[in-house]
Amino acid sequence: MEIAIIGLGKMGLGISKRLTKEGHKVYGYDSKWNASKYSKNDINGSSDLNELINGFNQNSKKIVWVMVPSGDPTKSTISKLKSLLSSEDIIIDGGNSFYKDSIKNSIELSEKNIHLLDSGTSGGVWGEKEGYCLMVGGNKNAYDQCEPIFKSLASGGMGYGYMGPSGSGHFVKMIHNGIEYGMMQSMAEGIEILHEKKEFNLNLSQITSLWQHGSVVRSWLLDLLNNALLEDSELSNVAPYVEDSGEGRWTIKEGIDLDVPTHAITSSLYSRFYSRRNDSFGFKILASLRNQFGGHSIKKAN
Amino acid sequence: MEIAIIGLGKMGLGISKRLTKEGHKVYGYDSKWNASKYSKNDINGSSDLNELINGFNQNSKKIVWVMVPSGDPTKSTISKLKSLLSSEDIIIDGGNSFYKDSIKNSIELSEKNIHLLDSGTSGGVWGEKEGYCLMVGGNKNAYDQCEPIFKSLASGGMGYGYMGPSGSGHFVKMIHNGIEYGMMQSMAEGIEILHEKKEFNLNLSQITSLWQHGSVVRSWLLDLLNNALLEDSELSNVAPYVEDSGEGRWTIKEGIDLDVPTHAITSSLYSRFYSRRNDSFGFKILASLRNQFGGHSIKKAN
Repeated sequence: MEIAIIGLGKMGLGISKRLTKEGHKVYGYDSKWNASKYSKNDINGSSDLNELINGFNQNSKKIVWVMVPSGDPTKSTISKLKSLLSSEDIIIDGGNSFYKDSIKNSIELSEKNIHLLDSGTSGGVWGEKEGYCLMVGGNKNAYDQCEPIFKSLASGGMGYGYMGPSGSGHFVKMIHNGIEYGMMQSMAEGIEILHEKKEFNLNLSQITSLWQHGSVVRSWLLDLLNNALLEDSELSNVAPYVEDSGEGRWTIKEGIDLDVPTHAITSSLYSRFYSRRNDSFGFKILASLRNQFGGHSIKKAN
Repeated sequence: MEIAIIGLGKMGLGISKRLTKEGHKVYGYDSKWNASKYSKNDINGSSDLNELINGFNQNSKKIVWVMVPSGDPTKSTISKLKSLLSSEDIIIDGGNSFYKDSIKNSIELSEKNIHLLDSGTSGGVWGEKEGYCLMVGGNKNAYDQCEPIFKSLASGGMGYGYMGPSGSGHFVKMIHNGIEYGMMQSMAEGIEILHEKKEFNLNLSQITSLWQHGSVVRSWLLDLLNNALLEDSELSNVAPYVEDSGEGRWTIKEGIDLDVPTHAITSSLYSRFYSRRNDSFGFKILASLRNQFGGHSIKKAN
């Protein structure tokens, strides 16, 4: 099939290369267009959106995959595409958009009878080689038309599925990422205890390697952790500072809206907050109060 | 090799059958000895410990695998074996004993120069077929002598390893189980949100099946969850009541001793506590206080 990919970052480029290898014709767009880098991967395209869309076979419906950061970049890209595309064309938002934004974007595009599919895309930088896991919501006919694209991207030709109405694809991906937060945090907590238990002098990468064989915690995340520990079991070059990109927050807020407690996922997000607050005012308050009532000494700020 | 297995419950029987199939000679012991059940699996043995130990080839060192519940049953079994075994014989505690108990038991057995290996054994009821993951601590020479046993039990012949001194095998298994608590809880929280999000009418087993292909959360626990949801996506016959068998508590206490925060694992254990407290006095207090200060109505107890 013919498809345009908007945004050739790590994910967008991986998707483009996988689709090209599977025989699809990919038109790429990136604001920082790098012709030599992309053409060696058989990706033709442009840094001009108008030019890109005109490069399509004008007799067929156009399919455009948007792979840019969620929020404003996705919203403005979809707005531009709305002016360039026509009735029955299809936009696939493959990023981590908040599902309520995807519903809004879908309604906006429906004014021109353009379909928006929201495709939660899991697999990270490994997806290009191993295939992705795609959770897709939106118009079912549009989904059926794009199925060859999804099948080519999917891990083992199996990792794709229609979730339901508009927003449901990004909703399921959001929850997937929330679960991921908790799984990662549990591993981090357990491995930190192993690391601190100096009397046993444990070999951490031996343990994570061992757990890959027959243990209950065997998982892809454990495989990745094992890779990291094999490289450097002290993770010496990694600062203990963890970002988040929103899906954990949204999962927790959704839990609150639905009266579902999410203690483990919530504590996983809060642990990331702690990792960034090395000048925490809250901790200064605690230290000050201990000093006030008990005369406990205060460690001086540098 | 020759080995006695003490305790032929789900785990002990699975281990016995796997060892027998791998060509080892297994003597079984269970207080409720069932000759017909065991002999059809080529397990000879007895309900008399003395008789069992005497069944061994008397010219070789004896190896005895203890697979009984942790705590008093394990302690009393090891005490009995101490009186029956001789210098250089080896006891393997394959259960979920608290690692400090294993260190104590090892010291007690060293009075007769009997070695105790503490083998954390992961894999559950699937281990018989897929192989186990064995984390072993204790005397290294004793470990080397038992290696053919561990190799035969291990998943793919790879799922076994020497962790370090006495107690370290059960320590690593304890942390493994702590991580397992958090991974399970994260899945439970995320899937509960999917279940409550009625407007999308999501197919839960379709989603867990999909996540097995290329997603970041793919894991053996997800495979098991998928099995359960495929059988009944509403889990209609399962009461929302979750037991725990100690390793989560020990992990959290170890974190406290080592100043390592374990919020995700702790909240996972606390969620299990909540699941059992359907007559919670704490919740009655909260409801009473809301009534006292705000006149909020109280739901009457049945």
